Amino acid sequence: MTTETTLQNFVKRYTEIRQHSVDICKPLEIEDYVVQPIVDVSPPKWHLGHTTWFFETFILIPNVPGYEVFDTQYNFVFNSYYETVGARVIRTDRGNLSRPSVSDVYKYRKYVDEKMQNFLTSDLMNENIEALLELGLNHEQQHQELLLTDIKFILGHNPLFPVYKKEIKEQKKFYKHSEMIQFFEGIYEIGFEGEGFCFDNELGRHKVYLNDFEISQQLITNGEYLEFMNAKGYSDFRHWHAEGWDWVKQNNAKSPLYWHFIEGKWMYYTLEGLQEIDLDEPLCHINFFEASAFASWKEMRLPTEAEWEVASTHFEWGKRWEWTNSAYLPYPGFKKEAGAVGEYNGKFMVNQTVLRGASEATPAGHSRNTYRNFFPTHLQWQFTGIRLAK
Amino acid sequence: MTTETTLQNFVKRYTEIRQHSVDICKPLEIEDYVVQPIVDVSPPKWHLGHTTWFFETFILIPNVPGYEVFDTQYNFVFNSYYETVGARVIRTDRGNLSRPSVSDVYKYRKYVDEKMQNFLTSDLMNENIEALLELGLNHEQQHQELLLTDIKFILGHNPLFPVYKKEIKEQKKFYKHSEMIQFFEGIYEIGFEGEGFCFDNELGRHKVYLNDFEISQQLITNGEYLEFMNAKGYSDFRHWHAEGWDWVKQNNAKSPLYWHFIEGKWMYYTLEGLQEIDLDEPLCHINFFEASAFASWKEMRLPTEAEWEVASTHFEWGKRWEWTNSAYLPYPGFKKEAGAVGEYNGKFMVNQTVLRGASEATPAGHSRNTYRNFFPTHLQWQFTGIRLAK
Amino acid sequence: MTTETTLQNFVKRYTEIRQHSVDICKPLEIEDYVVQPIVDVSPPKWHLGHTTWFFETFILIPNVPGYEVFDTQYNFVFNSYYETVGARVIRTDRGNLSRPSVSDVYKYRKYVDEKMQNFLTSDLMNENIEALLELGLNHEQQHQELLLTDIKFILGHNPLFPVYKKEIKEQKKFYKHSEMIQFFEGIYEIGFEGEGFCFDNELGRHKVYLNDFEISQQLITNGEYLEFMNAKGYSDFRHWHAEGWDWVKQNNAKSPLYWHFIEGKWMYYTLEGLQEIDLDEPLCHINFFEASAFASWKEMRLPTEAEWEVASTHFEWGKRWEWTNSAYLPYPGFKKEAGAVGEYNGKFMVNQTVLRGASEATPAGHSRNTYRNFFPTHLQWQFTGIRLAK
Amino acid sequence: MTTETTLQNFVKRYTEIRQHSVDICKPLEIEDYVVQPIVDVSPPKWHLGHTTWFFETFILIPNVPGYEVFDTQYNFVFNSYYETVGARVIRTDRGNLSRPSVSDVYKYRKYVDEKMQNFLTSDLMNENIEALLELGLNHEQQHQELLLTDIKFILGHNPLFPVYKKEIKEQKKFYKHSEMIQFFEGIYEIGFEGEGFCFDNELGRHKVYLNDFEISQQLITNGEYLEFMNAKGYSDFRHWHAEGWDWVKQNNAKSPLYWHFIEGKWMYYTLEGLQEIDLDEPLCHINFFEASAFASWKEMRLPTEAEWEVASTHFEWGKRWEWTNSAYLPYPGFKKEAGAVGEYNGKFMVNQTVLRGASEATPAGHSRNTYRNFFPTHLQWQFTGIRLAK
Repeated sequence: MTTETTLQNFVKRYTEIRQHSVDICKPLEIEDYVVQPIVDVSPPKWHLGHTTWFFETFILIPNVPGYEVFDTQYNFVFNSYYETVGARVIRTDRGNLSRPSVSDVYKYRKYVDEKMQNFLTSDLMNENIEALLELGLNHEQQHQELLLTDIKFILGHNPLFPVYKKEIKEQKKFYKHSEMIQFFEGIYEIGFEGEGFCFDNELGRHKVYLNDFEISQQLITNGEYLEFMNAKGYSDFRHWHAEGWDWVKQNNAKSPLYWHFIEGKWMYYTLEGLQEIDLDEPLCHINFFEASAFASWKEMRLPTEAEWEVASTHFEWGKRWEWTNSAYLPYPGFKKEAGAVGEYNGKFMVNQTVLRGASEATPAGHSRNTYRNFFPTHLQWQFTGIRLAK
Repeated sequence: MTTETTLQNFVKRYTEIRQHSVDICKPLEIEDYVVQPIVDVSPPKWHLGHTTWFFETFILIPNVPGYEVFDTQYNFVFNSYYETVGARVIRTDRGNLSRPSVSDVYKYRKYVDEKMQNFLTSDLMNENIEALLELGLNHEQQHQELLLTDIKFILGHNPLFPVYKKEIKEQKKFYKHSEMIQFFEGIYEIGFEGEGFCFDNELGRHKVYLNDFEISQQLITNGEYLEFMNAKGYSDFRHWHAEGWDWVKQNNAKSPLYWHFIEGKWMYYTLEGLQEIDLDEPLCHINFFEASAFASWKEMRLPTEAEWEVASTHFEWGKRWEWTNSAYLPYPGFKKEAGAVGEYNGKFMVNQTVLRGASEATPAGHSRNTYRNFFPTHLQWQFTGIRLAK
Repeated sequence: MTTETTLQNFVKRYTEIRQHSVDICKPLEIEDYVVQPIVDVSPPKWHLGHTTWFFETFILIPNVPGYEVFDTQYNFVFNSYYETVGARVIRTDRGNLSRPSVSDVYKYRKYVDEKMQNFLTSDLMNENIEALLELGLNHEQQHQELLLTDIKFILGHNPLFPVYKKEIKEQKKFYKHSEMIQFFEGIYEIGFEGEGFCFDNELGRHKVYLNDFEISQQLITNGEYLEFMNAKGYSDFRHWHAEGWDWVKQNNAKSPLYWHFIEGKWMYYTLEGLQEIDLDEPLCHINFFEASAFASWKEMRLPTEAEWEVASTHFEWGKRWEWTNSAYLPYPGFKKEAGAVGEYNGKFMVNQTVLRGASEATPAGHSRNTYRNFFPTHLQWQFTGIRLAK
Repeated sequence: MTTETTLQNFVKRYTEIRQHSVDICKPLEIEDYVVQPIVDVSPPKWHLGHTTWFFETFILIPNVPGYEVFDTQYNFVFNSYYETVGARVIRTDRGNLSRPSVSDVYKYRKYVDEKMQNFLTSDLMNENIEALLELGLNHEQQHQELLLTDIKFILGHNPLFPVYKKEIKEQKKFYKHSEMIQFFEGIYEIGFEGEGFCFDNELGRHKVYLNDFEISQQLITNGEYLEFMNAKGYSDFRHWHAEGWDWVKQNNAKSPLYWHFIEGKWMYYTLEGLQEIDLDEPLCHINFFEASAFASWKEMRLPTEAEWEVASTHFEWGKRWEWTNSAYLPYPGFKKEAGAVGEYNGKFMVNQTVLRGASEATPAGHSRNTYRNFFPTHLQWQFTGIRLAK
């Protein structure tokens, strides 16, 4: 049984977080909601529908007696990868579906939001459902970040380079000096502990043994990365993993994503449109291979996720998701939950790499220093950056 | 110098034909204009832009002094395959472009239409331009048919099976008896001659020598094709070309495009939505391999294009594009025109097969019995049918 | 009932033709018999086994009471594309099979040859089998040519450029002047008629109507083709079919197969090893796209197969398979035979192009001026050349 | 300066190890040396040439004044992935090269072996070269194991299932009971230390903190795995990583590699030919996805590489390479060596998984309990098995 204030708080948080997804899409044309230029990017209307489907499928349907599903076909269209819940739509197909229309997706959101708001203040609520609700809200926040990264990809790969929003707030430019912070060999603890929400992959606070290490106080800037490019970093195989070098050659890679060399100057696509590179800004949109090659060129390395977490109270983070040199693997004692919710994290624990921190695209309050983000090593389209260690 | 009545006629035809493209798109949601489910299908907004770009590029820019291009980027976006005019957009990219928006594309049409209407009644017109204008209008009509086929593909591959238009007019069902018409061995003439527009690939009326042949008065119906399916026609390699048999196995082909076996019944997607198969209607949406395999099963064959043209005054045609067994090759004396217009037909004269007639999706007045349509042998998405010969 | 002399002749022809396949392979190392560098090339030991399998399967098994199959697994390994006879080995797999060994394949040949020689002089022979025997011998001759083209490909794509045979006989170099032969409009006849063997695709001698045409007396030489290359023929899209232009760009094509630009000189791989280009020799190893582009650059065209056949008594042919501009389609009245033998030709009559004549690699006596060879348009590895028409 | 006895020992070890590669190939037909059925498998003659090239390139050329290279082209043919040494042959091409012939490769081995034997007893030897020599010998031993795995793949994918050798020695069958060994939480040390050879990736013995864990004394048997198969383990997505589940569906996977269900019985291809499954033998030829799914079905997990190494003195190992749940990553303080030798290990430290132990195919004396073998997660062709932990 949940107290009434808590319930009111849930309604408030639910409403605010759900509204934020809608706000992110405000600057879009209807056409922008529909396309899927590469398999990793989803159409914005799919994100809006999928996050709604999550609440309908995992909270309303099992808990609200007599709940009427908005449209029985939507399970097929908006499920992502929950094998337990039904046949999965092949991801590449998302960009082929002109229907449901954007307007229908917003109707779907409205319908589910009303049902959820009623439910959250009803006496049907209980603690198990609270945990699911928290998961749903954090899930929505993850997709808010993906919305921004995917919108940037969609507009940034259009030859007209449309502006997303002009009033994107200015970066503070404080990335001038890079100092190393020192840590000494010994036993440390990592992993989530305490109150509040976390994902299952953060659970199981446990001891790790670390050797002496140093980690940089600041992120690598565009200017520093440009030095690597000018030093022919993309042509020198010695700095690259074998798989990274194959990636460079197959893609004829020469710069971070969104960078264009136009009339003698390096420009990049930003959400405010095409602009000249700001040399003092933290570097963005590089993949793990590029991050590793840069570190090798600097005769340093990327930190492990344990080093990062231990050190994280000593530096500012949150501008870029920071590539670590840790594979995404279970913590000691990790157990998948039963049912569809158990598919959230565990089944991805192979051939992916951990990113730590958060980025400008991460919704406020969504991350923590135990948060374990993860992506395959070749992807550039997230707001990723580099912090060095040695 | 063109007379004033002719000019007024041009304006009228131009306006009517241009309006027809817009009319075809009226039932669409904005989202439907944007997607490209397979490489052969183009997004409707691309068709609307591309046909407009044709008039701007080949008529307005070279002939109207001081003409201001609507948007210099559009040449990149709306060119299709005219190597002479500039870098080609790779076809697969069309479905990734959310901009220009549908509304911008309609502004583009309006802008070009006004300039064209002024130009057509000005004293800048002359006979060379008339020929180009005719080509542009016929080009627009070809894309009107593609608009319909592509809209059908987009909606027909959406799991919600949206209706395009309810008032599509009813088929007359007169396809009951199939009689063979006989022709005797000898010299015949084929190819275009006389007044009026034709494409360059129809030119050069010439003699051909035909053997005795018979050709069917009527098209194959759904019911007749269903007999072939029920006789396991899709599992018997003896009826198929080797390449067709590979296509069957790779695609696990079992029926024409848009057919679905649902709860014990054969249904198909039509522009009016999902419906039960009408057994008396002429078969539609089969590729050349299927047409040939059906003919083989019937112990008949497909007609050559010369046979079809010679016989065409003796039967009704225009419901379906009819697969012939003729490869698309130049007529004797065929010459490509110089410049971009010369790229219209000649460069496709390899590895494609001729279709004759017209279909329900063809704009009224666009076809003739010398018209040579052509597509690769594996494609099903046009309104294609079967007429047998022996 | 076949007379004894005829039977003796059959044994002689059978023995000579079978021996010729073995002779072609004499210069090979065992390793050369095994590899398959591209899907179109078969390992030499596969050719030796497959031609043997043909006699075993279509003659010995059905006609010799109590015949014992050499190895029951060989049907699986050496069948090529006869759907009627059993599961087909996927072509790409041929190069993965180290067994049966070369020595086993030769044992297989010996075994079948002995059984065949006994059979051919027995009273089991009859006229139906004679026809099959002729087909089998012509089939073996076709594979003799493929043996040479495939051996050339295997050795010519090895970085050591091994010599096949030094004593390959010298070309007569008489290709100096190119004169056009004129033909007048009218009815002509083409197709096979008379005694002797022909393939089913040549049958049905029939009338065709040809317009005035001219055809060149001589084949295009390497020197003439080099002029096209030097005139940037491979960079000018106007001469190419759209599909050909895609081929040029995807393969970065710049010259015929086997040509290499080494230290300032054009060299080519020949069966005698790497040599400097002989400018007076007839051009070899170009595909249909290259042949068409060259013709376009010369402001001429390729002949149709009917033109070629009608004119063929007026020029020397046999050095190169000559690309025509005719698609490979059935002659009027063409009928596939029943059973596996009917799969020989008919099922390939789509998306292939006719070549006429013969080449240096064709066994003596194997070709005729009604012979219809055919290949897909992108392939270069046959001994192909160019004769122009207009 | 190296003492004479040491030098004699080097000659002895060099000679024995080199001879062992030749012995492994003794049962082969020449044809078996040439083919490459999948990209991960190399032709046996390539292994024989590549290991020879290693000694020629890294020892003889830089250290023997006036050394004459056996064939300058061989660097191109037998280099594997040393970017520093020259242009790399694309791996897929290895199976297309019929030359150098097997006999030439053996001549190459003989030539280099003589030069090496002379060199090893000369006064040109020194300690740096000793280290390289050790690397070269261990490199040869790694390829001896690959020779066996690749030969098994080549013969095991031939429809004739040829026998490699009949006298392969019998397994001891002691895998009856599976007991768990317990370890307690605390600091442990892993990594190589002391005398003798090890690879650079084992260096840097260091402390790790382990939680309580249990590890099985014995490997999983065929019988235990068959229970998983019979319990529909290959059809239940809940046990699989998402990437593993995709692998199952794309490959229609149903059993370990080399298993065939023939006439109601499970058979497998072994180096002695096709045989009935031995239920008591340790399971072999499963990939990481299968190992993980099996562990999940057993409600256990795979050990980490640190757990394995710590526990390894308490169980027998060496029958199968054992999949761990550790990604292949650098140990603390890992540094790549300069030059080509530095490419040996470090550049593969991404998206691969560690295997520990050794297998029946590993040359005697080649492995140790700090040895870090690694492969991508989808590969089955090594002699891999499963040990469980919890």
